[in-house]
Amino acid sequence: MAAALAPAASLRLRPFSTLRLLSLYSRTCTSNLPSSRSLPSPFRSALPRRRCLCTIITGALYSGEMVKQEILENPKGELGERVGKFRRRLKVAEIKGGHDEGMDRVGQSIVVMGWVRTLRAQSSITFMEVNDGSCLSNMQCVMDSDIEGYDQVEAGSISTGASVWVQGEVVPSQGSKQKIELKVKKILLLGESDPSYPIQKKRVSREFLRTKAHLRPRTNTFGAVARVRNALAYATHKFFQENGFVWVSSPIITASDCEGAGEQFCVTTLIPSSVETTDTLLDSIPKTENGLIDWSQDFFGKPAFLTVSGQLNGETYATALSDIYTFGPTFRAENSNTSRHLAEFWMIEPELAFADLDDDMACATAYLQYVVRHILDNCKEDMDFFNTWIEKGIIDRLRNVAEKDFVQMTYTDAVELLLKAKKKFEFPVKWGCDLQSEHERYITEESFGGSPVIIRDYPKDIKAFYMRQNDDGKTVAAMDLLVPRVGELIGGSQREERLDYLEARLDDLKLDKDSYWWYLDLRRYGSVPHAGFGLGFERLVQFATGMENIRDAIPFPRSPGSAEF
Amino acid sequence: MAAALAPAASLRLRPFSTLRLLSLYSRTCTSNLPSSRSLPSPFRSALPRRRCLCTIITGALYSGEMVKQEILENPKGELGERVGKFRRRLKVAEIKGGHDEGMDRVGQSIVVMGWVRTLRAQSSITFMEVNDGSCLSNMQCVMDSDIEGYDQVEAGSISTGASVWVQGEVVPSQGSKQKIELKVKKILLLGESDPSYPIQKKRVSREFLRTKAHLRPRTNTFGAVARVRNALAYATHKFFQENGFVWVSSPIITASDCEGAGEQFCVTTLIPSSVETTDTLLDSIPKTENGLIDWSQDFFGKPAFLTVSGQLNGETYATALSDIYTFGPTFRAENSNTSRHLAEFWMIEPELAFADLDDDMACATAYLQYVVRHILDNCKEDMDFFNTWIEKGIIDRLRNVAEKDFVQMTYTDAVELLLKAKKKFEFPVKWGCDLQSEHERYITEESFGGSPVIIRDYPKDIKAFYMRQNDDGKTVAAMDLLVPRVGELIGGSQREERLDYLEARLDDLKLDKDSYWWYLDLRRYGSVPHAGFGLGFERLVQFATGMENIRDAIPFPRSPGSAEF
Repeated sequence: MAAALAPAASLRLRPFSTLRLLSLYSRTCTSNLPSSRSLPSPFRSALPRRRCLCTIITGALYSGEMVKQEILENPKGELGERVGKFRRRLKVAEIKGGHDEGMDRVGQSIVVMGWVRTLRAQSSITFMEVNDGSCLSNMQCVMDSDIEGYDQVEAGSISTGASVWVQGEVVPSQGSKQKIELKVKKILLLGESDPSYPIQKKRVSREFLRTKAHLRPRTNTFGAVARVRNALAYATHKFFQENGFVWVSSPIITASDCEGAGEQFCVTTLIPSSVETTDTLLDSIPKTENGLIDWSQDFFGKPAFLTVSGQLNGETYATALSDIYTFGPTFRAENSNTSRHLAEFWMIEPELAFADLDDDMACATAYLQYVVRHILDNCKEDMDFFNTWIEKGIIDRLRNVAEKDFVQMTYTDAVELLLKAKKKFEFPVKWGCDLQSEHERYITEESFGGSPVIIRDYPKDIKAFYMRQNDDGKTVAAMDLLVPRVGELIGGSQREERLDYLEARLDDLKLDKDSYWWYLDLRRYGSVPHAGFGLGFERLVQFATGMENIRDAIPFPRSPGSAEF
Repeated sequence: MAAALAPAASLRLRPFSTLRLLSLYSRTCTSNLPSSRSLPSPFRSALPRRRCLCTIITGALYSGEMVKQEILENPKGELGERVGKFRRRLKVAEIKGGHDEGMDRVGQSIVVMGWVRTLRAQSSITFMEVNDGSCLSNMQCVMDSDIEGYDQVEAGSISTGASVWVQGEVVPSQGSKQKIELKVKKILLLGESDPSYPIQKKRVSREFLRTKAHLRPRTNTFGAVARVRNALAYATHKFFQENGFVWVSSPIITASDCEGAGEQFCVTTLIPSSVETTDTLLDSIPKTENGLIDWSQDFFGKPAFLTVSGQLNGETYATALSDIYTFGPTFRAENSNTSRHLAEFWMIEPELAFADLDDDMACATAYLQYVVRHILDNCKEDMDFFNTWIEKGIIDRLRNVAEKDFVQMTYTDAVELLLKAKKKFEFPVKWGCDLQSEHERYITEESFGGSPVIIRDYPKDIKAFYMRQNDDGKTVAAMDLLVPRVGELIGGSQREERLDYLEARLDDLKLDKDSYWWYLDLRRYGSVPHAGFGLGFERLVQFATGMENIRDAIPFPRSPGSAEF
């Protein structure tokens, strides 16, 4: 690891006035009485609780002077104790994350807690790498055989996967991989690791790790994915909040009849099954005289489903609060076992009032550039890891996205461009047909050399009913944002705000207008031009990390036949 | 509205380098060619698209000088256009939200877009209140009858609920309710409001508004709830991110057998129903020879449910990344039609590694104080509204929470306190029974005069299997955080990290250990002391806004018989 960590840590270390950063063991504890977040519980439980609490405030408590301050008396003379101050535990990202990669801490006595990644004994010293998940880097711990607790190393109970508490002094490292290391004074085993621990040093396949979804975040790859996923999520909130968008939670369960995009999961309490009993008699489901399922007895009194999109709900809030975004789970019951599909995934769906397709494209562009810049600036170590081990060149690819101008062109122009292309495509190109992945990648990767490209104004027949009809009568104000390697990352549109156009479109498509009563109401009462887009969050994680399979971009993937954990 | 708005707006106006705040109509458009987010679409569509795009860069484009810059040429000579810069639309919160409530804008020509709240014509001038949802305050617009577009006012097409585009000059207000108002030069109707508009000026009940969930955010109350809910959500992310917690998305659908808390919804594709057809023959559901439901044919190959908690999943990431939090929807299929229960609600569940119950209580306290302080500082206008119209004294109540020390006491001490109380309770108090709401409120409201109180160390028999057993063998390291008026807001515990204790507890409760294989694995491989808590987000919204019914604390509430929209 290199200077790479610096920005990541600066994010984590932003000053936060209400919290006290107890970074130094030597500072917080004047005696050998440690504070509760720097000492393993076997130690702690030996201390009287009152004293343990008080060490939060000061280490000089054995005198008992401050105990009275901790007691709060109610008006009736009954007593309670004061709740202690929240303290951040000192983490490896903070130790090694400064500008000089921890050199400012040389000479300090600190405590590190984490999981053993490797342990190798040399003639007189033992090297142990400890990781606490706060960053990719381990803390290299160097031990002489005479330190306190070394018997646990000798006995073999401290092994890969075990959790440890290590106290020592920060010293300049002899090795070239890091600037500092920990010269251990005392080590304590917190939790042994059974020899069956499946994540040993030898490489294991991603397929195997999917069966160990509860342990895979302990690997370099999945730890890095989790941190970058987190950074992308937070950057998403930051971008929209800083621009005055209001986060709206669109409903997950819906009995609304106007979703219509993709196959849905049914949500029901009619099936009297439970996690314990799967032996459910079909006849136990309530039915009507005609042998139909009796929905009136279901929880919601009618069929209910998992949402496929929060957009229509989002529009109701956009046409009241101006700009909103949703960020929540959505579902598809499609039986597709591909590396690009999940049955459960998170979507980000902003909706802008008083906005047209140009505004929508501009917002999507600014958003994408913002989140990409955010991870390049704040997740350097993890991004270097992806660049080296997962997808060579990913940092350059992302930098292109963050810095290059995005190109826009109409669908009609794109079709023309593809028809003129010298390349032979598997799927023929024809106006009126949806663009295939090969076409999208040709445009963004070959035609525009790595620039993201937005295709706009698609034929109305291949797009959703709610998209705003253009004046040509043939196309709608839709847009797809294509990026190199991944293809479509964002899809959006200006919404049809004209009641008569929208009703005519519903009629065309033989959709039941009554089901859309509330959606049409938005056009009856103070309709405004508005536009929005949708982004599958796991696609974004794939795009930003280079992970090939979308099941590795979410902690607990759900797909046909698979809903473990 | 008063100086109250200032902090809210400062939040919104935080500098954001990549975006250009085009606040002034007069500045962005040198001719009468407006930029796209400041002009209604009927106008815009009359402009050639190229030029419309270019106005984003400068208003001086009719010369065509800059058009070349907008064209991007690919290596093969094909052309695309550059995507425009994203611009924030000027909103009322920004206009009136400065330190001097907009006085700094006096003399400026601006455009406001929003929905008409009221319109009243006096002898020579007409007053119109326009709200754009960015804040509670309306923009007061003052019109002479000779302004451009006044015919629409006269014709009655601009009425309550209609959307308008208004251009004018900021002038000091004659009225006492606001410092500035808009002297209108031009008004344009964007969308009429049908006379059936259900949200007229006269007060309507909350029950009625629940049937209009798509329009209720246009009311003062629900607009304010939406903004405060948003602020609480963002403060939640900020608190955890600033303290190095990683957001983890726990799964929504789960076939895992180890949830066990509360009744669950079944998620299935076995029922071949769709939004269009509800006439489903029971016999169309696949069954086995014995007449049992054939789960092997379901999407996940076995029964699957909606999650009731992400905690167990969260623990897997906490024991890899140290500190994590979830923030996502959870579900209860309980048939309770109360003002405190939802079938679908959002939960926040942090999990801290290397932490005990003291750390957990300290974190919950710091979190709650942080988010409360955040809304007091950033949502002043909305909080003043709640203080006046929804719950008198709510600001003092919240200030108490933000500033007072939180008290902790053991369950055993709490029982003793209640037994000594002179108050007569409906439910008798007895060691071993769960505390009722009346007991909780007595402790926090009467015993400790408005201070939040944490009760800890509950009898193990009334708490969940995963809570850590205390040394007394009778109690577990659980805690409930009680606040005045609401009662329990947060529940948490230190988790049982000792494999033998946990297995014994599962046996005691006759739970199937095999189902918990991955949860137990966390104790087999490098187990660490860890603790966490859960918070129902809608309860927090109720607590922070004073809204009595939890169905008014979420945009689209789900409860028995109700999953509309």
